[in-house]
Amino acid sequence: MAADAPVTFRGWVAYDKTAAEGNLVFTEFAAKPFTDDDIDIKITHCGVCASDIHTLRSGWGETDYPIVVGHEIVGFVVRKGNNVTDLEIGDRVGVGAQCYSCLNCDLCSNGKEPYCSDHVYTYGSRFADGAKSQGGYAEYGRYPASFAFKIPDSIPSEIAAPMFCGGATVYSPLKANGAGPGKTVGIVGIGGLGHFGILFASALGADKVYAISRSRSKESDARAMGATDFIATSENGWLEKNMRSLDLIVCTANDTSIPMSQYLLLLKVGGKLVQVGAPEGGLPSFDLFPLLFNQASLSGSIIGGRQEIKDMLELAAKQKINSWVETKPISSVNEVLQMMEDGKARYRYVLVN
Amino acid sequence: MAADAPVTFRGWVAYDKTAAEGNLVFTEFAAKPFTDDDIDIKITHCGVCASDIHTLRSGWGETDYPIVVGHEIVGFVVRKGNNVTDLEIGDRVGVGAQCYSCLNCDLCSNGKEPYCSDHVYTYGSRFADGAKSQGGYAEYGRYPASFAFKIPDSIPSEIAAPMFCGGATVYSPLKANGAGPGKTVGIVGIGGLGHFGILFASALGADKVYAISRSRSKESDARAMGATDFIATSENGWLEKNMRSLDLIVCTANDTSIPMSQYLLLLKVGGKLVQVGAPEGGLPSFDLFPLLFNQASLSGSIIGGRQEIKDMLELAAKQKINSWVETKPISSVNEVLQMMEDGKARYRYVLVN
Repeated sequence: MAADAPVTFRGWVAYDKTAAEGNLVFTEFAAKPFTDDDIDIKITHCGVCASDIHTLRSGWGETDYPIVVGHEIVGFVVRKGNNVTDLEIGDRVGVGAQCYSCLNCDLCSNGKEPYCSDHVYTYGSRFADGAKSQGGYAEYGRYPASFAFKIPDSIPSEIAAPMFCGGATVYSPLKANGAGPGKTVGIVGIGGLGHFGILFASALGADKVYAISRSRSKESDARAMGATDFIATSENGWLEKNMRSLDLIVCTANDTSIPMSQYLLLLKVGGKLVQVGAPEGGLPSFDLFPLLFNQASLSGSIIGGRQEIKDMLELAAKQKINSWVETKPISSVNEVLQMMEDGKARYRYVLVN
Repeated sequence: MAADAPVTFRGWVAYDKTAAEGNLVFTEFAAKPFTDDDIDIKITHCGVCASDIHTLRSGWGETDYPIVVGHEIVGFVVRKGNNVTDLEIGDRVGVGAQCYSCLNCDLCSNGKEPYCSDHVYTYGSRFADGAKSQGGYAEYGRYPASFAFKIPDSIPSEIAAPMFCGGATVYSPLKANGAGPGKTVGIVGIGGLGHFGILFASALGADKVYAISRSRSKESDARAMGATDFIATSENGWLEKNMRSLDLIVCTANDTSIPMSQYLLLLKVGGKLVQVGAPEGGLPSFDLFPLLFNQASLSGSIIGGRQEIKDMLELAAKQKINSWVETKPISSVNEVLQMMEDGKARYRYVLVN
């Protein structure tokens, strides 16, 4: 245990759904009981993910308040349990949106830990002993070591932080669906997730990367990230001009007005659209014909498995991928939530302790 | 040209959307101009497909009346064009839902003729010269020979007919998605398409074949077709009992009340649901969460490619697969349409000339 290991845990606590409007309160909270499998992390950075806001306002169902959100966590190991062999005190690590799975089932054995029935998310879940999981808008965090990942030295902490959820969430379906040489990839939405989609699709060597957005306001940014083409869906004829041109679309759009049937028509026959944005509620009506007449597939994906996170960090280090972030002192978290809600992030806020 | 080659074409013609209610009129219609690539078929059998009714009542969009429907056609070649080398006068052949594609594009070269931009469906389409395509509720049919398939001698004509659309439509996604040993397959809907789904999934060697229907009224039939398990979605707890148990679902349901999000939860993580039924209109609301949290995929498929149809016929001959049909004289077609609409088919009506 390092000299600065925590005695009490303090962080930005939400008590009800008004928290999303900027009512987080800095105070003590109960960490899970420390076990031999756990580490304590002194948090230096935490990205602000759309999931945080969905959860703060109970947008995906009633949240288990009080809660500390934040699942793009970077910091230093300050305490480790007796079973922890691959991390040392002082290591710089990151924790993403998941902090536990059984590691024994078929899914875990195949790198699909996010889908393990025993999964615990980094906040808003309960461990088997009933303790709540609490996120990274805090001074310290306590997590099973198996879901903390060492960060390559060459990646600055503020660049690494948002990769642990936002980055992994798009890296996983891009990699799993063959984004790379010979492929034309579309990324819907140029926000926290979408900007990683462009960065990673480009880094993986896709022939063409289409950024797809309502207007052209982010076009120059998207091209600077690596987009080779741009579709603005507010322009007449965008669909007709681009029918059957993409092998793969990763859709990060996060609202119920996604024109899904039209996006499916952008796909080549047999192409795939992977939804990673998680809107609050269902799409209003869903036309099956584009699936049938284009043999297209619509699938979904959440976060990434442990090996995918490690692979992503390795790729980011090797190719010097820079997340586009703005750092903010964590004391301004309530203002930052508002700015995030207002769509001002370019493209990820990272809170700094 | 055989002695009985047609001079005029006569069939059961629909003039407007009341045709679906039993207003087909037996009269002459204009066949396409005969070309060197065509054959004329003396039709002996034609299956009654749900597509026929959707089209007769303009359920999928305004139909190009007057029209003759029917695309599960069996008969004998009575005339062949000079370019036709692999069929002879007198051959027994079948024609399904598609009668033309370019045969040159990437899609055609990869067995995906149904998705070729130049496709012509067997009825309700136009050939490049502007002539209408007309279906098989008729004495004779005229089609490009490239979409007529010789039928193995061991398969009776009434058994073969409904395979050309209904059979191929489910065989194609079953085969393409690996239905076979080691796989658990679900078939939603036990009707014309669904009964083929059970027959073929079983013939392809799937470990388990689940028939999924609202009630248990067709359970004994489904088991006789080869279903090993049965889910009745009118029973409490059907979803909870069967979550994450299927590798692949082929959904033949044909109405907008399909509980798609629930079906997706029947899939194992990473499983696939392929929709082949084509409802008139979109699903009322579509919840993306089952796609995300189950990494499931929802795709679609129409009819089958030429090689798939040939493979299906070979499998059917080898394994003695018997379509469940009731034959009816074609003169009773108007009554048969009503019985079909009333859900009385067990499981396919075949019109006999």
